[in-house]
This record gives sequence, structure tokens and C-alpha cells, in this order.
Amino acid sequence: MEKPKLTPISSLGEFGLIDRLSLGFEPKRPETVLGIGDDAAARKVDGSKLQLISTDSMVQGIHFDLSYFPLAHLGYKAVVTALSDIYAMNGTPTGITISLAISSKYTVEAMDELYRGVRKACRFYGLDLLGGDITSSLSGLMINVTVVGEVEEAKMVKRSGAQEGDYIVVSGVLGSAYLGLQVLEREKQVFLQDAAMQPELDKYKTLVERQLKPEARYDIIRVLAEEGVVPNAMIDISDGLSSELLHICRASKVGCAIHEENVPFEQAAFDLAVNEFKIAPVTCALSGGEDYQLLMTMPPASFKKLDGKADLKVIGVVSPASEGYKLISPKGEEHQLIAQGWNHLNKH
Amino acid sequence: MEKPKLTPISSLGEFGLIDRLSLGFEPKRPETVLGIGDDAAARKVDGSKLQLISTDSMVQGIHFDLSYFPLAHLGYKAVVTALSDIYAMNGTPTGITISLAISSKYTVEAMDELYRGVRKACRFYGLDLLGGDITSSLSGLMINVTVVGEVEEAKMVKRSGAQEGDYIVVSGVLGSAYLGLQVLEREKQVFLQDAAMQPELDKYKTLVERQLKPEARYDIIRVLAEEGVVPNAMIDISDGLSSELLHICRASKVGCAIHEENVPFEQAAFDLAVNEFKIAPVTCALSGGEDYQLLMTMPPASFKKLDGKADLKVIGVVSPASEGYKLISPKGEEHQLIAQGWNHLNKH
Repeated sequence: MEKPKLTPISSLGEFGLIDRLSLGFEPKRPETVLGIGDDAAARKVDGSKLQLISTDSMVQGIHFDLSYFPLAHLGYKAVVTALSDIYAMNGTPTGITISLAISSKYTVEAMDELYRGVRKACRFYGLDLLGGDITSSLSGLMINVTVVGEVEEAKMVKRSGAQEGDYIVVSGVLGSAYLGLQVLEREKQVFLQDAAMQPELDKYKTLVERQLKPEARYDIIRVLAEEGVVPNAMIDISDGLSSELLHICRASKVGCAIHEENVPFEQAAFDLAVNEFKIAPVTCALSGGEDYQLLMTMPPASFKKLDGKADLKVIGVVSPASEGYKLISPKGEEHQLIAQGWNHLNKH
Repeated sequence: MEKPKLTPISSLGEFGLIDRLSLGFEPKRPETVLGIGDDAAARKVDGSKLQLISTDSMVQGIHFDLSYFPLAHLGYKAVVTALSDIYAMNGTPTGITISLAISSKYTVEAMDELYRGVRKACRFYGLDLLGGDITSSLSGLMINVTVVGEVEEAKMVKRSGAQEGDYIVVSGVLGSAYLGLQVLEREKQVFLQDAAMQPELDKYKTLVERQLKPEARYDIIRVLAEEGVVPNAMIDISDGLSSELLHICRASKVGCAIHEENVPFEQAAFDLAVNEFKIAPVTCALSGGEDYQLLMTMPPASFKKLDGKADLKVIGVVSPASEGYKLISPKGEEHQLIAQGWNHLNKH
């Protein structure tokens, strides 16, 4: 008998596996305007509005370490990471469902804390809780959040609309959440070696907060609406600038050139990367992930309307597909951008 | 310093924990017609139609054992269990999102098998796949399915509408999925003790199939529509007849009396319970779970319209709340119905 073929998932990678499993799921229903493959799916349910839906999970030991992740923050972050996908469609989230798997080690008080964070996020972002499922797990905690939202059909922004000549624009600063995680991991190791050592976190407060309590960029979506700008393409940066920009380029069949010196950092993150962790700050931005910033492309004229009104920065330009995916160093050297997915720096 | 209070979740139970965590989540948005607490939440998104949403998870080692659960069946079942909640609102499911957590032990071929089942369920039930998330886990497989569907506002059936004098009606047969699981567990033990022993499953084929490949009762919903019957209350039986009937009674502020001799069994299940497992068949129906049948209440006149046209059976009557929750034995003895939740026979 022939031995069945057994292919490790690592040989395909996260994105390869998703592509493979997505085969045969072309939308069949008339109301499904956009199926899988973008930040969210879109369905026409009411006149000019589309309903958006997206799902995200966080797994203990993979996405968070409870030795330094307060449960209330974790509940908040689980919601925020899911919302970010709706904003990335230029939409507004309206409700969530939460599904928990918990081992018997968890107490009622721990769940109260987790839900305190969920409740706070629902209040802050104006969401209704639309469903919950709590089940046992053999080990650890897993949280799944599915989010629904809405967007005017004409304003929905997909990954696939980038045009040659568009500016590549990013919100906020990058790399901070990754560096915050490195600080937390380092202090944990120090503590494990000597329990009398108090973690030195005050100095890195902003970075640690960006890891433990990120916010989704609802404010950017609001400014886009106020200024009447609809980007040509948009995605949220959960896995790092590099893989998200490549998602846009591949979906839009275009190339890109971004300039390293334009990638936005906060000073504390830049200094920490250079002085303490001895890594290039740009590496943290490209592959660190968990920044939950928005990456978009738009014509220069559109950016002009936003300039100075929103926390946005131009980092490069969309080029013809034939020119590939380029990162240009301050010295003018060209590097090829590479996606990372599961194999990246961060375990996320 | 006072020691923080630590309450094991088992002291509250599944339903107590859900009630506690649900506090403070009253719907705030105008479109949310029904928040958490029923089989699905409902939102008004389009004229006379409500959108339904519900979420369900399956965890390896808790809900399934891969030593006897074929992955394609598992994918199919994960979808079906989620759909059942939409049918229980008298609705029609239209799409799902799937979130997977998988350990590195899984192969690409295993995921192909799982998705073969998901694809089959989507085709059979007419669903679009609207989102997916695949992440790593430290141990085992977890599948979360969130399902969206729709229902005419006037036809939505909640848990809370049962009226005194209503018939209590159930679809199909009960206890079979639980007994199928017992057979699988028994044959696994036999195999573990002697790998040369071949599992004897043919004899129990129907029961094992009810565990491994349940279907959701779309056909019942269709007959209700055809005959113009809208039950007063409805719920799906995922955790056993007993806890589901109590959900209806508590939500509707009524009592109930069901007759043991009217609880529907298939002969193979009844015989297996009595002759081999030496347990009362009614116990399997009350607390076994995973039958994914529909439990509903309706006036006798409504049932008359359905009689003979659908796979439905009257098992009792809705009584005033003051009369409590009763199970009446064939000899006329009255027993108190008790909910089980997490502590029930089956690990589900």
C-alpha cells in the first residue's frame, strides 16, 4: 500500500494554506458582494449599505502570555484586533460575537476581568455583543471574536484597488507593539531568573501599552469620511508592514517602492531597537506585527486633502507590477520586500 | 493583605457563568432587536427582515476525539452545530466564518479533509464562506464557526414566547448521538487494549452516524413555513432535552410537564441503552446532548396543521410557572427536571 502523502503546514506557510483551503468557496448567494480573501467579507443586505463580517482569534501561548498580559487588557485587545479588519474596509463595526474556550484552571474572577475589557471595548467603540459561546478546553484560553459592521457600497475599500502612481500611506507609528512585546519578554526572563527583581517597565510604558492595549484607527476612518477621501486600497497592519503591503500589491497586480527613511517610528521605539535590542527599527516595522495601523494607497491629490488633518504619512509609491516590491534604503540601495506570515519575528 | 477571592467556574456552572458575564451588555444600537441570551441575536438591517447571528466552537479532547472522528465529518459537524441555532430562531442560515487554531502536528492533507467537510456542508445548506482565520495552537485543534442568517421579523421564534397550554413538541429522535458516542468510546477502549481487535461498528451504524454526521433540521423549518405555523418558542437541543426545555420555561416564565413515554427514540438507541449500556433511554435523551433536534411549543391547533406532515412529536404541555418542571414516568410518578450543562453525561 502506498503511504499517504503528509505535508507539514510549515511548507505552505500561513498564506499558502489559506489560499489552498479557500478553493471551491466562490460566493454563490446573490447578496455576497465580496467573499473570503480581504480583511472582511461584504454582503448587500439593505439598499446602498453593505454589511461587513470578519473573524479573529487569540490563543494562549501563541498570541499572549498571561504572566504579563492582564486579562482585562486581553479582552479589550481581542475586540480591537477584530475591529481593525472592519475599519480596513473603510467601514464601521457595529457588533461582535465572542467565543471562549477555557481550561478548568480559570476562575470566575479571571473571566470577570476578561469581560471587563470586552465590555470597555464595546462601550468605547459603540458595539453590541451579539452572541457568546463558552466551552471547556484541555489547556489554556482561546478567544475568538467575530465582528459585523457596515459601509456604504460606494465607500468600501478593498485590497485590490491600488493604482500605479498612488501614494502608499500609513497611519500612526510602526514597530512599537513588537518592541513592547520584546520588553515584556525580557523582563519576564529577568524575573524568572531572580524573582526579587522588579520589572523595569515604566521607562517603556508607551511601547508596552501599544502591545497590551492597542486601539483600532476609527479616527482615521472618520477623517477620510470628513474629507471625502476614499482610498483605492486599504488593509490593516496586523502581521507587519511587509506582508500587508504585499497583500495589496498582489491583489491589485501592482508593484511598490517604499522608502525606509519614511517609515514612521516613535522615538522610544527607535532608540530601544538600536540601543538595547540591536535590531534595525525598520525590521520591527516590516515584520513585527500587531500595530493595527492602516495601510492604504490613494492618488497624491487625495492625500493632499488629508495632509495635516490625520495621523498619516506617505512612505512610498505604487509602481507597475513589472518593477516588483522594493524597499529603498536611505543610501538608495534597493531591497526586495518579503512576506513573513507565521515565520516572522513575533509568534503572532 | 487580603487574599483575592478565587471561585472555580464549576461552582457557577456553564449557564451561571454565561449569565454573569452577560451583565452590562444590554443592546445599545437601534438595529439590535435581540441581544445575547437566545439561540442567535437578531438585527434589523433591511425592511421586514432580521439578520441572525450565532457562534459555536468545537475543541479537540472536549467535543471530539480524532482517534475515531474523521476530519471531513468534523468539518461538516462544526458547520451543522452552528446552523442549528439559526434554524432554532425559525431562520435560514446564509453564510459562515470559520476560525481554526491548529497545532504544528497537523498536516496540509488533514486540513484538506477538514475543509472537504466544510465545503460539503456549505454546498448542502446553501451557505457562503464569509471569512476565515487560521492560527497556531500549542495543542490540538479548535474550530469556531459563526453563522449569519435571516428571518422575516414576524416569523422569528425566541425562547421566551411559550404560553400555558402549548404543546411541547420535538423533532426526530433523541439520545442517539449520545449513544453513538458511547459506542465509539467503547470500541476505542477495546482497540487500545488489543490493537488486533477490529471495531464492531456496522451494527451501530445509524447511531454512530448521528454522532459523527448530524444534520440540522432545515426540513422542519420548511414545513413550518409551508403550513403557516410559527411556534411560540423554539430552541435547538444541543445540550440535552432537559436543559433546553428549562431554558424555554425560564425565558417564558412558565412550567412544563413532559411524559417519559412520549420522548421519541429510535429502536436501535433504545435497545442499546437498555441491553448493553444498562442506562435508562430517557436519561440519554434528557442529558446526552448533540441531537441537534428542534424543541418548540405551540397551541394544539397549530400542531394539528403539522401532524403527519413533519417529523414532530408532542411530548408534553406547557403549564403555569407555579407547577414547576415535571417529568412524568409511565407509572405516573412525577420527577423534577434538572439542567445539566457542563456537568452532564457527555463531555460536550
